[in-house]
Amino acid sequence: MDSADEKYDLVTRNLQEVLGGDIIKEILASGKHPKCYWGTAPTGRPHIGYFVPLTKIADFLSAGVEVKILLADVHAFLDNLKAPLELVNHRVKYYEYILRAVFTSLGVPTNKLIFIVGSSYQLTPEYNMDNYRLCATVTEHDAKKAGAEVVKQVASPLLSGLLYPGLQALDEQYLDCDFQFGGVDQRKIFTFAEQYLPRLGYRKRAHLMNEMVPGLTGGKMSSSDPNSKIDFLDEPALVRKKIKGAFCEEGNVEENGVLAFVKAVLIPVSRLRIRNRAEAQTGAESLPTPFVTEDAPEGALFTIKRPEKYGGNTHYSDYDSLHNDFKDNKVHPGDLKSAVADALVSMLEPIQKTFRESADWQAVEQLAYPPPPSVAKPKKKKQVYHPPPPGKGKNAAAAPKDAPAAEPASSAAEGSSPAPPVAPESVSVPQPTVAPPVPEVDAAVPPTIADAVLNALSEAVISNPEEKQ
Amino acid sequence: MDSADEKYDLVTRNLQEVLGGDIIKEILASGKHPKCYWGTAPTGRPHIGYFVPLTKIADFLSAGVEVKILLADVHAFLDNLKAPLELVNHRVKYYEYILRAVFTSLGVPTNKLIFIVGSSYQLTPEYNMDNYRLCATVTEHDAKKAGAEVVKQVASPLLSGLLYPGLQALDEQYLDCDFQFGGVDQRKIFTFAEQYLPRLGYRKRAHLMNEMVPGLTGGKMSSSDPNSKIDFLDEPALVRKKIKGAFCEEGNVEENGVLAFVKAVLIPVSRLRIRNRAEAQTGAESLPTPFVTEDAPEGALFTIKRPEKYGGNTHYSDYDSLHNDFKDNKVHPGDLKSAVADALVSMLEPIQKTFRESADWQAVEQLAYPPPPSVAKPKKKKQVYHPPPPGKGKNAAAAPKDAPAAEPASSAAEGSSPAPPVAPESVSVPQPTVAPPVPEVDAAVPPTIADAVLNALSEAVISNPEEKQ
Repeated sequence: MDSADEKYDLVTRNLQEVLGGDIIKEILASGKHPKCYWGTAPTGRPHIGYFVPLTKIADFLSAGVEVKILLADVHAFLDNLKAPLELVNHRVKYYEYILRAVFTSLGVPTNKLIFIVGSSYQLTPEYNMDNYRLCATVTEHDAKKAGAEVVKQVASPLLSGLLYPGLQALDEQYLDCDFQFGGVDQRKIFTFAEQYLPRLGYRKRAHLMNEMVPGLTGGKMSSSDPNSKIDFLDEPALVRKKIKGAFCEEGNVEENGVLAFVKAVLIPVSRLRIRNRAEAQTGAESLPTPFVTEDAPEGALFTIKRPEKYGGNTHYSDYDSLHNDFKDNKVHPGDLKSAVADALVSMLEPIQKTFRESADWQAVEQLAYPPPPSVAKPKKKKQVYHPPPPGKGKNAAAAPKDAPAAEPASSAAEGSSPAPPVAPESVSVPQPTVAPPVPEVDAAVPPTIADAVLNALSEAVISNPEEKQ
Repeated sequence: MDSADEKYDLVTRNLQEVLGGDIIKEILASGKHPKCYWGTAPTGRPHIGYFVPLTKIADFLSAGVEVKILLADVHAFLDNLKAPLELVNHRVKYYEYILRAVFTSLGVPTNKLIFIVGSSYQLTPEYNMDNYRLCATVTEHDAKKAGAEVVKQVASPLLSGLLYPGLQALDEQYLDCDFQFGGVDQRKIFTFAEQYLPRLGYRKRAHLMNEMVPGLTGGKMSSSDPNSKIDFLDEPALVRKKIKGAFCEEGNVEENGVLAFVKAVLIPVSRLRIRNRAEAQTGAESLPTPFVTEDAPEGALFTIKRPEKYGGNTHYSDYDSLHNDFKDNKVHPGDLKSAVADALVSMLEPIQKTFRESADWQAVEQLAYPPPPSVAKPKKKKQVYHPPPPGKGKNAAAAPKDAPAAEPASSAAEGSSPAPPVAPESVSVPQPTVAPPVPEVDAAVPPTIADAVLNALSEAVISNPEEKQ
């Protein structure tokens, strides 16, 4: 069993910033388990960028922290007003399946992992009364400042964008956490919560922030390019192909999603695995191994495999050495990519095995992400042959190309706050953990959908003396 | 029984503006009763400015309209975060007592009058989900524009001010009304509702607007001057004294609260009383009489009593003639004030009688408006006598004056949307029907108060899986 200090180090390692660390220290010193909240809106399909925050959450779980994962269904519904609600409900389930499988594959104890669906408390009178109380103390200026980095900045900002900082603050109280975890892009929202919760008579929470990590497949995100994200269920060959195509320039350590993934995921996971194997009472040999080859020295965390003629395998016991070697052109992008692909495929394997063995999960997947409705091909106009004018060769009239199925998700910045997929036309601004709705202003949502939301989301029965029509 | 056209005329007479009148016409043509909503926040103590909207509402009731009076307790609580909640609950009851008594004194049928407490529906999941949906479609710009005339304009505007237009729009849906009634200061909020409700799949409502009426005691309001408002329970002598002191300049018809009261209340009430007496099957003689003397010709609605030597009684069968006579100095302010005081005292009499005869109401009054806590007088410093320097006479050190008890209410503009009392330091900008909270930013409200709100306000039992601490 770790000491309180060791646990604190485990909880706070690899973070960019810790606010209110004393709160956590005090709880650990008293022998209790700190409680953490991390939120995600189940809008699109989670991609491997989620490994980044989940790897850090694995540290929390290893240190005995009680982790609550908020599946923000209400916000996901609002984010996509046109989508039928069933979709959101199914996606909530899909997210829980994926996240549980990921934690299991990371080999961390999940007995302190709790999933909470937002609608179970975010529509209660208590919560809403607190929201109104907060709105009666928060100025527009402060709300706007708090959301500046995570709320999409548009020409005509919506009220919802002003509400999110407050709602995220209230979630800390209603999820009864000691600290909230998120990407450093959440910093202003976090300090807002620290400032405003005490004004409602609630205690100030600590805030732990991951640094922002570029997407694994690197470079600029493009939602129209399906290669810019890797799905948890992508087959090994596809994973390798996508990583092979990732932007990873020789010697360039700045904009390098592949290197960033090693730092944020693979090295910490290796460290966790070594720890787990060392601590296991029995069966250590059956536990997952760190991402090193058998010839690696003790303490090695990551191996770049290379034929002898290119210098042979290189083993790293920390990230910085790899970083420096890559910068100095001592590691070739191709070799780095191979090593990362191997590690990633091995991490995905148990997740995909769980998926293959779970008929329930497979059914949920079908319901949550139904194939896009087959667009009726426009009737081809009967081609009338017009002979080209003299001098103009080949037929210029190409048959209409089938539009590629819209890919709803971009991987955005794979920071510790996985961004919900954004609409293709939106820029890849980091999104808040709980994403601001992207409304369809012109789309009238018939009341039947709102009714469906409530029937489906909330078990609460409330007496409303007035009948809605 | 009136025809549909006659009912429509009764519903819409004496208004400054009607939006969507066809909606009401259609309902009346089908033989149904239109449904109306009018809201008030039970913050301070209602004053006779409330006669203005209530007189118009009497028209609605006479025309068979179903009138819902929203007692916005949640907003009243938020308006006054420091006040214990019991106070708001007691004030809700006090408002209902007063408003019922006023309607009874006006002699209108109250079987279609319904009181609804805001917390009975404004904290439900349905309502809040709709609020979020609305916030996901409403831009900051539109919300700010809508509230420009009714939300207090301050240097650091609060989020609550941006929410009110939307909440007031939702109230139309949740109170199931066909039209909302308010002062013309509400115009932008009303058109906002017409624009946005259909975007949520709800129908557009009609909007009926009273003109804004200066306070009876006229001129600039001053909350530190208790004479600037007349309480429903003020004794006749006090009423007469206050009216005597009202600003009512000879020949000045512009800033004249006394004339305005005749126009907005006394003339319409006289008209109603004549109608009621004419329609009564039996006992017409026991019904209240119009504000005319016995020598008045048929059709007279208002009499200015004067001794013969000053021209004798003058009777008016419409407001305009009185207006013109006053403008032409044919009516002296003193005579006008006397006539108004007589009429008002006669209108208050049955209300005060009901109060005197109701032990329950009296008990509620004590609870709703407890006397301000007696401030312990600062111990007087022992006065040491310093003789004045030569040439300076009288003792300059005056004994500390007892601060007059703070008078929380100003009567503000006595339009059709009675303004909740505003804090002494605020300007007399018309307030929305549902007033924006005036928060105490530094006052932490302990969670126990929030709990009390919810226990007290809401009967709804909602399962919240997370325990609040």
